[in-house]
Amino acid sequence: MTDLVVYDASQVATPTDDGEMVTVQDGAVAIEDGVVTAIGSTESVTRNYPPEDAMNAIDAAGKTVLPGFVDPHTHAVFAGDRADEYTAKLEGADYQDILAEGGGILRTVRATRDASRDQLVENLLVQLDVMLAHGTTTAEVKSGYGLDVETEVKMLEAIDEAADRHPVDVVPTFMGAHAVPEDADTDEYVDRVVEEQLPVVAKNDLAEFCDVFCEAGVFSVEHSRKVLEAGREHGLTPKIHADEFERLGGSQLAADIEATSADHLLQSTEADITALGEANVTPVLLPGTAFSLATDYADASAFEAADVPVAIATDFNPNCYSQSMEFTIDLACNGMRMTPAAAVRGATVTAAKAIDRTDGTGTLQEGAPGDLVVADVPDYQHLPYNFGVQNVQTVVKHGEVVHRD
Amino acid sequence: MTDLVVYDASQVATPTDDGEMVTVQDGAVAIEDGVVTAIGSTESVTRNYPPEDAMNAIDAAGKTVLPGFVDPHTHAVFAGDRADEYTAKLEGADYQDILAEGGGILRTVRATRDASRDQLVENLLVQLDVMLAHGTTTAEVKSGYGLDVETEVKMLEAIDEAADRHPVDVVPTFMGAHAVPEDADTDEYVDRVVEEQLPVVAKNDLAEFCDVFCEAGVFSVEHSRKVLEAGREHGLTPKIHADEFERLGGSQLAADIEATSADHLLQSTEADITALGEANVTPVLLPGTAFSLATDYADASAFEAADVPVAIATDFNPNCYSQSMEFTIDLACNGMRMTPAAAVRGATVTAAKAIDRTDGTGTLQEGAPGDLVVADVPDYQHLPYNFGVQNVQTVVKHGEVVHRD
Ligand SMILES: [Zn+2]
Ligand SMILES: [Zn+2]
Repeated sequence: MTDLVVYDASQVATPTDDGEMVTVQDGAVAIEDGVVTAIGSTESVTRNYPPEDAMNAIDAAGKTVLPGFVDPHTHAVFAGDRADEYTAKLEGADYQDILAEGGGILRTVRATRDASRDQLVENLLVQLDVMLAHGTTTAEVKSGYGLDVETEVKMLEAIDEAADRHPVDVVPTFMGAHAVPEDADTDEYVDRVVEEQLPVVAKNDLAEFCDVFCEAGVFSVEHSRKVLEAGREHGLTPKIHADEFERLGGSQLAADIEATSADHLLQSTEADITALGEANVTPVLLPGTAFSLATDYADASAFEAADVPVAIATDFNPNCYSQSMEFTIDLACNGMRMTPAAAVRGATVTAAKAIDRTDGTGTLQEGAPGDLVVADVPDYQHLPYNFGVQNVQTVVKHGEVVHRD
Repeated sequence: MTDLVVYDASQVATPTDDGEMVTVQDGAVAIEDGVVTAIGSTESVTRNYPPEDAMNAIDAAGKTVLPGFVDPHTHAVFAGDRADEYTAKLEGADYQDILAEGGGILRTVRATRDASRDQLVENLLVQLDVMLAHGTTTAEVKSGYGLDVETEVKMLEAIDEAADRHPVDVVPTFMGAHAVPEDADTDEYVDRVVEEQLPVVAKNDLAEFCDVFCEAGVFSVEHSRKVLEAGREHGLTPKIHADEFERLGGSQLAADIEATSADHLLQSTEADITALGEANVTPVLLPGTAFSLATDYADASAFEAADVPVAIATDFNPNCYSQSMEFTIDLACNGMRMTPAAAVRGATVTAAKAIDRTDGTGTLQEGAPGDLVVADVPDYQHLPYNFGVQNVQTVVKHGEVVHRD
């Protein structure tokens, strides 16, 4: 039986696998057994899939139907928040003072170490609810607030359990190399990641990707290579936080080891971008980070000029506290000056590529997962045009309505 | 009988009349006959106002209660939109080309002239719904897409009718001097505003304020003075769009004629700010405009340094298409680097001052209008910390629940 027919949409808009935007006015989508079986004009789709015969039907008059959004970069599992540090910074406090008072990432590490696994599960479920309400149907979530084997495993187990209990598809990434803990120097800590953490994570099949924060003062290119190559030996696919504050060489490393994605990329040069494109590494830009810190955005136009499509992601974490891919599209256009088509592509099909989902995730086409968003706008360009408001109304995962406003 | 008791809130947060933030942990608010009758700890408020005896009660556990937001600057009534121009700009089109092809504000003027009054009412009601969903309980709305007496009157009548039919309190502003129509030169058009439009608007009691776009290439300081002085003679209180692109002298004019507010103020100098403060003119900053155009924000810190509190507003219009005061708070903090306290004050009590509402609007205190927002955050600083998502869940106007997510 047909799970769902969405019909009479002002527009159905989807990127194709190769990134072109296809739009259908007065469009419809049918989903059967969790998979898209038809997309086209309401007339053509409803001829084979009459709404009255489906288990569920959505009249999308005046609205736009898009693939469910894919968030390919989050740090969504943690305990505590750092709102007080956020306010202190706006009140003029120096970041070094905040660090000296025990603030910053290591504060989140302490809180996450102190939290029970169940508490982390509950926290993540709340965050997944907010993500879903703003259109995300697939999200990557990284560990990395443990920095010891027990807590990294606890985080990944919490991700696994939350994933079981929530409609959002969750893709787990091990990121033991997120920061250096207080009780170690960097060489020593890299050894712990490689020799203690990775084997346990791999043995228990807790993560699909391995990520590292390659940045001046944190993990060097050599450290990063060591972690990512060890990860690959354990069956974890590499991802990398690269060239955010300094051009350390993370993009080139990503190209060299053929990482699935390289993320941040504010300092990447034309040569770096070409190398990423040639190695089929998906660049992931994170405009929320720049927005919340009032710093420059990554130069999306340089990627556009090199014809290398970019994914966009929230980077949701205690220092960049937004779960919304809908708002990330707003930022991509209003902030980074991407076109609406490029932003939607970056939030769907290219984002799926950044987490190795090549089963049609991030598109609406026959055989693709039945994940979609109904937004209260007449066409997809109105999503970023009508910025800063919640336009997403209904979210469908595998053909089932999982959020309705 | 008590209309409503909101209790067990993680925090009740309100500015006082003089702008200090007051917070109550585990707080409550009671509203009777549409007016706040108690605010304080849940224990103290519910002793006199037991939730079970009230017509309505909201358990706000884990949530924050704030005064309803006041949006003191919108152009929310118009026909059509300009999403295609927005996209064309992101695709690299030159703004002069867009103008040459009939785009820009005069396109909205044509569409608004062509629309029926009923159509404008329906359009505005939709916009007021979105405003309300994001926490706005009082909004100023300007005319100014008519530029002829018939259409300016039609717009103001539409505002009046929408106000009657919608819970948001709407404050009407006449802004015939928004742009110069194609069939007139500026001197001639100013005469029309003063001699044709203002008398009809005043006679029919259609507006409370008179506003003018004082800017190089539009209305000079002398034109603006003429319009605003004529408005005052007709009983309309002056407001002014001042010093946005060039420092033409609009701030000084605002101080000189003691306007209620001066808005935009990107080019205002220290002397301008001091003059505004001494003349008791409320500055209104509009960060959405900068966000959507990717230009600089107004320098909020200069107003802070001069101890002149600022209001913030959406500037909602077809070229800055966001209805959300919740997001305007996000922009005030993340973009303009205001503190959460200053942003909340700017969106409530100071915004009320910018539209001459001195009956307690924008505060929660005994005797103030029973307008409030329940947001799904533990304290008010989390509103901008958790940016780009809809945190507002429930909105109350005059003691009645008028929006619930
Ligand atoms: Zn990250
Ligand atoms: Zn304006």
